Amino acid sequence: MRNCADRLLDLIDELGNPSCGGLDPNINNFPDFIVKEALKKFDLEPRKPDQDIEKEFEATAWAIEQFNKIIIDSTADILPAYKPQSAYYEQYKAPGMKALENTIRYIQSKGRIAITDAKRNDIQETAQAYANAHLGMVPLITGVYAPAFYADMLTVNPYLGSDCIRPFIEVCKLYGKGIFLLAKTSNPSSQEVQDLELAKKHGGRDVYEQVALKAEILGRELIGNRGYSSVGMVVGASGETPEKLKEQAETIRRLNAYGINLVPGYGTQGGFGIDTVANFNGDGYGAIVNNARKFIYAYMSDPWKSKYKPEKFDKAARQAAIEMRDDIVNALREAGFKRWSK
Amino acid sequence: MRNCADRLLDLIDELGNPSCGGLDPNINNFPDFIVKEALKKFDLEPRKPDQDIEKEFEATAWAIEQFNKIIIDSTADILPAYKPQSAYYEQYKAPGMKALENTIRYIQSKGRIAITDAKRNDIQETAQAYANAHLGMVPLITGVYAPAFYADMLTVNPYLGSDCIRPFIEVCKLYGKGIFLLAKTSNPSSQEVQDLELAKKHGGRDVYEQVALKAEILGRELIGNRGYSSVGMVVGASGETPEKLKEQAETIRRLNAYGINLVPGYGTQGGFGIDTVANFNGDGYGAIVNNARKFIYAYMSDPWKSKYKPEKFDKAARQAAIEMRDDIVNALREAGFKRWSK
Repeated sequence: MRNCADRLLDLIDELGNPSCGGLDPNINNFPDFIVKEALKKFDLEPRKPDQDIEKEFEATAWAIEQFNKIIIDSTADILPAYKPQSAYYEQYKAPGMKALENTIRYIQSKGRIAITDAKRNDIQETAQAYANAHLGMVPLITGVYAPAFYADMLTVNPYLGSDCIRPFIEVCKLYGKGIFLLAKTSNPSSQEVQDLELAKKHGGRDVYEQVALKAEILGRELIGNRGYSSVGMVVGASGETPEKLKEQAETIRRLNAYGINLVPGYGTQGGFGIDTVANFNGDGYGAIVNNARKFIYAYMSDPWKSKYKPEKFDKAARQAAIEMRDDIVNALREAGFKRWSK
Repeated sequence: MRNCADRLLDLIDELGNPSCGGLDPNINNFPDFIVKEALKKFDLEPRKPDQDIEKEFEATAWAIEQFNKIIIDSTADILPAYKPQSAYYEQYKAPGMKALENTIRYIQSKGRIAITDAKRNDIQETAQAYANAHLGMVPLITGVYAPAFYADMLTVNPYLGSDCIRPFIEVCKLYGKGIFLLAKTSNPSSQEVQDLELAKKHGGRDVYEQVALKAEILGRELIGNRGYSSVGMVVGASGETPEKLKEQAETIRRLNAYGINLVPGYGTQGGFGIDTVANFNGDGYGAIVNNARKFIYAYMSDPWKSKYKPEKFDKAARQAAIEMRDDIVNALREAGFKRWSK
């Protein structure tokens, strides 16, 4: 199996774009025509009592799948990867999980990397089940094994320690997959645990630094031909201050040189291209920047709102994806990274 | 809505049992008759090529649901709560999640508490989606809201900090639900993050102690009539040494007096009744002990293996549940807790 980091970096090179599109579908932000299509297809009416509730779940999941496919069709020549966020699918129970599976398949059918953002983990045997579910193969009652969600990459929570990360590593080896361990998340209260300073006997590092070190050690087993590991880290692009943010990204970069940082928080959470630079190595690689809400709902936000009608939400998303790419590439160029020079 | 901690404690009193049954279905451990029934019902044959793979997933999920229902039928007069572990259902994609939903509904139909062990969390809006998915109501494309998985309680990962725990708290208030925050997990490498000692400026506490303090503060908003909060903690029953284990449970108890500890690791992971005592308060409440594999697969383990045939796996599970209850209650009695005296 080809190393997942190699696959991701090759796509970043091919498209000249180290960013990815977050698929966090919120039906309240869907354009009317998709809602109407879903209601018609499932023979439902708005707010009518006594309709079949399971059919309402199915119609909702169907709308999510259509929305995603339109977005992917409009941007797959620009984006090397997409990141569906599991919570938004899980909300719709079995039909939602089917929409997640179909979204992953659709991303892969376009030759793009599907990153399931599920932040899973548990004790060993259970971690194995999560790894099988999202990246590997699962045992069926007929005695055969089959792929389940079979995404390319998965976000993984490190709070339980390395014996719970190991099953993911083994599945990554078997099937050419990758993981991103949460080191530093982009929400304000991430500091409450992640930024706590440890005692001198632990080197006085912060908790997130300890996680980055752990990721570095585990990642050694999955380094590809391009010198990067399929064990990366989530490193938030928004934070208390841009300075603090830069300092933390630089620290993580120093502690784990061959990890690829998945950098969420671009756009909505206040991050910009310039804020992501510290996540890259001198060779111009080592990070992939995610944008969700200012990408898929660009049609609702400035500066695109005035230019795109809701029916053209896919065109707005395409424009937002192009602008994100250019913003990040320009920032890398201005920072002097040769890889990104004209 | 009635407070969830009150509901749980009332059931513990009614059944005289502070323990719960873990539903971690692994089809490799299922008795033959369930496998055969599933194959027959879905018109499948073992290891036959070119069968409909989606039907194989459905048959597997159906078997899981049957297995769970038989276990629940056999033990619902003994156990106040059941804890399905999400990973084992997620493995089977949409059909698996349907089996999870049906299992939760079945537990609730018996008047018992359904604890979904999913260890979820993410940044705020996404945490809200997870909270809605597992404990609350979700918006449908028809404009109405409906319950999704609607379990009674959910395990939640604290690594992202309190702004990501807040959405769960709000959903708990609205619908009378509860959460367990992971403080100290029962796997060996849990010490790698959770046991790290913090710097003096943070009071020199360990990371898990900081989480217990956070749980205490957040839990104040959900204290019921019985003095316990619907915000509890996961506190592992197995550990490096019984002494260390006891010390950590006592520390957590001291830091968060009204949190209910969900104590996994009984049985399989090496915990026994006596190891769980430190998780209880002087009033004899404050913990619920979970047993999964030595409960549902008791028929495969000593001392029950020689007494129960695979077809009687539910009787073995019942016997294991009774023995667990008696073991824990005896340990509490011997420790001098009046609540549990004869």
